[in-house]
Amino acid sequence: GIISYQNTTVLTLKQRMPQRLPNRLQASAPTIRTLSSSKSFPQNIPSCLWKLGRLNHVAIAVPDLEKAQSLYKDVLGAQVSETVALPEHGVYTVFVELGNTKLELLHPLGEKSPIASFLQKNKTGGMHHICIEVDDIKAAMTELKKKKIRILSEEPKIGAHGKPVIFLHPKDCHGVLVELEQA
Amino acid sequence: GIISYQNTTVLTLKQRMPQRLPNRLQASAPTIRTLSSSKSFPQNIPSCLWKLGRLNHVAIAVPDLEKAQSLYKDVLGAQVSETVALPEHGVYTVFVELGNTKLELLHPLGEKSPIASFLQKNKTGGMHHICIEVDDIKAAMTELKKKKIRILSEEPKIGAHGKPVIFLHPKDCHGVLVELEQA
Repeated sequence: GIISYQNTTVLTLKQRMPQRLPNRLQASAPTIRTLSSSKSFPQNIPSCLWKLGRLNHVAIAVPDLEKAQSLYKDVLGAQVSETVALPEHGVYTVFVELGNTKLELLHPLGEKSPIASFLQKNKTGGMHHICIEVDDIKAAMTELKKKKIRILSEEPKIGAHGKPVIFLHPKDCHGVLVELEQA
Repeated sequence: GIISYQNTTVLTLKQRMPQRLPNRLQASAPTIRTLSSSKSFPQNIPSCLWKLGRLNHVAIAVPDLEKAQSLYKDVLGAQVSETVALPEHGVYTVFVELGNTKLELLHPLGEKSPIASFLQKNKTGGMHHICIEVDDIKAAMTELKKKKIRILSEEPKIGAHGKPVIFLHPKDCHGVLVELEQA
């Protein structure tokens, strides 16, 4: 079940997890250092039973997978996988490792590919979605529905990594297709 | 200077840095495990004197910064900064911490904002660019020019984090605006 969203609950969560906020700030200290003051990060921890995690990948739809593969491997020098066919997802995929996360190059496979219409609108390719990990996708769904964020499927589907995923409506996420993946 | 791209040079680099590839694979092992075989990662290390690093951020242009801030903070439960004005870059920025990397929400500041035309074309907002770190931006520029990747400025500019950055032409990167930032 989802707890109620009252200040008292928030305070309780904070008291039980005193290390959470400092730890996360510490981990990202080098990039935050340019901010003018620590005031930039208010201490109001969100009061929910599920937690957003790391960025799993940025998906990029490309019209020519070999050329895109070559750009990241031969020109930019990234570690790049061979092409992986995922027929059940209607895509060919190439994984570009960036150390902390990865890019996933997508190309349509079959006639019902979910990225075909995107590539018709964006002929040179483009960023298709971002995927963020969550620790409890069912709890996330329940809460997101309450908060009027539209989810593109009634139930989680098994995603390209074999884990349950949902997609949030881009119009509810300022134009970004957001995938949430059970970590 | 940039070294020549001959097999012998590649071998020399590999011999001098025998730990590089295994280390990178090891660091990303959990996400790679779903691939069918280790063959997916060929062993040809790119032969250059600069190295692509981690994904620094994904930039998202938004028409309403407060609403976007609230989505990531109150609905998705991420750690979100207050609004930071960067007048010299023509943007207001909000940083969304995801642990391994961050999202940067951008909103136009002033009349010459570099993201104004993007938001005119994408009224609900959208992914604007990805920023990847490099260890030597000058070496990267030299090599990218040789390889016919167009760079949007003659020289690196000082980016939003106070470090030298360049942007690569989206048409040379399959529709993605790629920022490279000196790590």
